[in-house]
Amino acid sequence: METDTITAISTPIGEGAIAIVRLSGPEAISITNQLYKGKDLGEVDSHTIHYGKIIDPETEEVAEEVMVSVMRAPKTFTREDVVEINCHGGMVSVNRVLEIVLSKGARLAEPGEFTKRAFLHGRIDLSQAEAVMDLIRAKTDKAMSVALKQMDGRLSGLIQRLRQELLETVAHVEVNIDYPEYDDVEEMSHEMMRQKTKEVNKEIENLLEVAKQGKILREGLATAIIGRPNVGKSSLMNALVQENKAIVTEIPGTTRDIIEEYVNVRGVPLRLVDTAGIRETEDIVEKIGVERSRQVLKESDLILYVLNYNEALTDEDRKLFEAIQGLEYIVIINKTDLEQKLDLNEVRNLAENNPVVTTSLIEEEGINELEAAIAKTFFAGDIDTGDLTYVSNVRHIQLLKQAKQALEDAVNGLEMGMPLDIVQIDVTRTWEFLGEIIGDTASDSLIDQLFSQFCLGK
Amino acid sequence: METDTITAISTPIGEGAIAIVRLSGPEAISITNQLYKGKDLGEVDSHTIHYGKIIDPETEEVAEEVMVSVMRAPKTFTREDVVEINCHGGMVSVNRVLEIVLSKGARLAEPGEFTKRAFLHGRIDLSQAEAVMDLIRAKTDKAMSVALKQMDGRLSGLIQRLRQELLETVAHVEVNIDYPEYDDVEEMSHEMMRQKTKEVNKEIENLLEVAKQGKILREGLATAIIGRPNVGKSSLMNALVQENKAIVTEIPGTTRDIIEEYVNVRGVPLRLVDTAGIRETEDIVEKIGVERSRQVLKESDLILYVLNYNEALTDEDRKLFEAIQGLEYIVIINKTDLEQKLDLNEVRNLAENNPVVTTSLIEEEGINELEAAIAKTFFAGDIDTGDLTYVSNVRHIQLLKQAKQALEDAVNGLEMGMPLDIVQIDVTRTWEFLGEIIGDTASDSLIDQLFSQFCLGK
Repeated sequence: METDTITAISTPIGEGAIAIVRLSGPEAISITNQLYKGKDLGEVDSHTIHYGKIIDPETEEVAEEVMVSVMRAPKTFTREDVVEINCHGGMVSVNRVLEIVLSKGARLAEPGEFTKRAFLHGRIDLSQAEAVMDLIRAKTDKAMSVALKQMDGRLSGLIQRLRQELLETVAHVEVNIDYPEYDDVEEMSHEMMRQKTKEVNKEIENLLEVAKQGKILREGLATAIIGRPNVGKSSLMNALVQENKAIVTEIPGTTRDIIEEYVNVRGVPLRLVDTAGIRETEDIVEKIGVERSRQVLKESDLILYVLNYNEALTDEDRKLFEAIQGLEYIVIINKTDLEQKLDLNEVRNLAENNPVVTTSLIEEEGINELEAAIAKTFFAGDIDTGDLTYVSNVRHIQLLKQAKQALEDAVNGLEMGMPLDIVQIDVTRTWEFLGEIIGDTASDSLIDQLFSQFCLGK
Repeated sequence: METDTITAISTPIGEGAIAIVRLSGPEAISITNQLYKGKDLGEVDSHTIHYGKIIDPETEEVAEEVMVSVMRAPKTFTREDVVEINCHGGMVSVNRVLEIVLSKGARLAEPGEFTKRAFLHGRIDLSQAEAVMDLIRAKTDKAMSVALKQMDGRLSGLIQRLRQELLETVAHVEVNIDYPEYDDVEEMSHEMMRQKTKEVNKEIENLLEVAKQGKILREGLATAIIGRPNVGKSSLMNALVQENKAIVTEIPGTTRDIIEEYVNVRGVPLRLVDTAGIRETEDIVEKIGVERSRQVLKESDLILYVLNYNEALTDEDRKLFEAIQGLEYIVIINKTDLEQKLDLNEVRNLAENNPVVTTSLIEEEGINELEAAIAKTFFAGDIDTGDLTYVSNVRHIQLLKQAKQALEDAVNGLEMGMPLDIVQIDVTRTWEFLGEIIGDTASDSLIDQLFSQFCLGK
C-alpha cells in the first residue's frame, strides 16, 4: 500500500471564487501545519474547518488567506488523513499554495490518484470508482442518475451476487465430485450446473440488452443532420438547440479547448455534428460517392435526413436514401407551410421502416413529434432509469460480453456431455471476467490505466 | 441590510474533482437541511464537515453524494450563516444541486454578492473587497503579493490614518475658531493647517508615485514588438515566452473565451501584443504615416524596437525612430553573431536616452540584459513589494489624484490668506475622496457597480 502524501488542485482551472488544494496521506496534517498560521492542526478535531494564513517559506510573507478542512482517517474519501485548503480562486494564488505544499514534502498526485487510493483501501470498488468519473463527465440528468446508481454500488451489488452464485455452484459441484459414492450425484450436479449457468446468463443478457442505452446516456448520440441545401438543416439544428437545454462542454487537455455541443432531447444527449460537418454532407454523395459516404455516415449513431415538402424528390435525394440504407435514421419532411410538391408515398417507401416526421420549422410545428421519434428510436418511448441497472461503460460491456461467451461455452459443454471439471473451467472464467468489472480480479496495469484517465485532483 | 439567503456555484466552471455550491444568509442551514440526508445540520457545531446525500425533491432519489461544511455567523466570510456543499465536480451534477437549493427558497447570488455582504457587514472595507478580486485575477506572484497586502488592510490602514489626521486638524481648527478670545489663535490654526495639509499631501504623492508600478503589476504592461521584416521579432517573442513562465488567461464573459498571453519578466507581467498586431507594425509607418502610427503605438506601455546588426540603417528604420520618439522604448540590436553593418553610434544618437541592448537571439545571447533593461525601465531595478504600499487600482489612483487636487486647493488657499472656514471645505473634500477608496463615503450605486464586476459565486 502506498504511504506517501499526495496533493493536487481539486477544483477546475480558471477564475473562480474558491479553489481547493487537497492533500491525502499520513503527513497531510503535519505538512499543512508547517505552512499554516493559525490553530495547531495536529490538535483539532476531525471534520472541522479553520481560518488561517498560508506562509511562504521563502519570503515568510502571507501567501494566502485560507479555510483549512481537516479530516482524519478512516472516515474520509481516501480512508487516509485528508486536508483541504480552500483558497481565494485565481490561478497564481492557488498555484503558489500548491508549490508551497509540494516544497514541504507532499508529492503531486497523478490523475485519479485520490480515487485510486479510495479503491486500494477498499472504500469503493472499481466500477464505483469509474462511476465517479462518469458523474463528473455526465451530460444530462439521466446520465448523472445512471452514474450515481453505479457509484452507490448498484451494479457492484448485482455483479457480486452473480459471482457468488457461480462460486457456490462450483463449490457445490466440487463437493459432489469428491463424494461420488452417493447415487445420482453426477446427474444432479449436471442439472444444477445447467440451471445456474442459464440463470446467470439470462441476467447478463438483460444487462447487455439495456447497455446500448446506458452507453448513449453516458456518451451522447453522435447525430448528423443531412439533406440538400435550403431544406432547413440549420433551422433544425437551431430548433433543437433552442427547444432544449444546450450543454457546451470543454474538453480539457488541449491548448485551446475544443467545444462540443450537446442537446438534451427527452433525456437523450445528442452530440451534434458541427456546422462544418453538416455543410460537407450537403454534397457528400457527389463528392465521394455512395459507398464512401456511407462509411462517413456510419460513424453517426443517428442521422436526421431533411427533405423539402415544397420540392419534388430529386436524384440527389434518392442517392442520399441509398447512402443511409440500413443505418439508424429519421426522415424529416420540412416546410409543410408551403405547397406540397413532394410525393409522400415515394418517401415512405424509400424510408422503409424508419420514422417519417413532418415539420414546419419556421412555424415551430412538428418539433415535439420529432423529439418523440428520436426518443422512441432509442428507448422505445420515455426512458426510465428508475429500475434498470444500466451498464454504460464500454469496458464493462466488453467484460460482460466475454463473461457471457464463457458461460455459453459452459452451457454448450454441458449439452455435449463434457465432464463437470472441464465445464467448471468456463464457469471460473466467467467468474473472473465479472470480477474484473468490480476490480477484484483486475491487474495492476489495468487499474493504473483506468485511473490515469481521471482528471487531476480527483 | 439584506436578509435573504443567497447561493451560487463558487468554483470555476469546468470538469474538476470538486465543485462547491455556497449558501449565505439566515436560512442557509435550514434550506440545506431540507435537501440533505445525513445528520441534522441544525444541531451540528459551527465549522464542522458532514458526509451525506442531496435528495432530489422531485424524484426523491439521491442527486449527489456530498460533504457539507456548516459555518455559523458571525465568524464567516459574510458574517452570516454560511454552508458550503462540496459535490463531485461535473457541470450537470453541480447545476442539479444548485437547482435544488434554489427550489428550496435560496436566491441566486449576483456576481460579488458574497463579498458585498462581507463589506456591508463591516468585515472588510471597499479597498479590501476590491483586493479579493485583484487576487483572483493576479497574473504574477508580485501582483498577488500587492493584492494580498491590500486585502490584509495595509492600504486601508494608511488611508484611515490620513483621514484621521485631516479630521483632527479640522476639529482642532474649529475649536480654535470657536474660542477666538485666545491670543494668536488665528496664526496658530493657520500654521497647523499648513503643516498638516503638507504632510498628508506628501504621503498621497508617495502613494501616487509608485501607483504606476502597482498598476503595471496588476494589469500587465502592454508591450509591442516592432521593426522591419526579418530582424528577429518573432524570435524575440519566442525567447521571452520560452525563457519566462507564460501565463495564459481566459477572460470570462465571452462565449468563446479570448486568450491573452502574459509573460512574467522579473516580476513585470508583459501583455504581449498578438502576432497579428506585430505584423501590422512592420509597415505601419508607410501605411498610415508617422503621426497616425504614433497614436497606435502610444497605446503600448512599452515598445521593443528590433534592429538588424547585419544591415545598415534604412530610412524606414529612421522613420520608426521618429514614430516612437518620446514613448517608452528599448532598442534591441539583434544578430550580433553576423557581421556588423549597422552604425551603432547613429543608433545611440537616435535612441536618445532610451536603453540599447545587443542580442543574438539565435545564439541565446543578450536576453538577460534585455530582461534587466525591461525591469529597470519600470522599477529602477528589481521590484520590491516588501515595504511599499502599492496602489494598483485605477479607481483608487483616480481618487488619490482628486484628493491631492483638493488638498492643493487648500494649501493654495492658505497661502493666499483665505479664511480657515473656506480652506476647511477643501480639506473636507480631501477627506471624502479618501473615504471613497475604502467605501466610507461611497454611494450605493458605486458599490453596486464595483461588486458587479466580481465573478459569480464570490
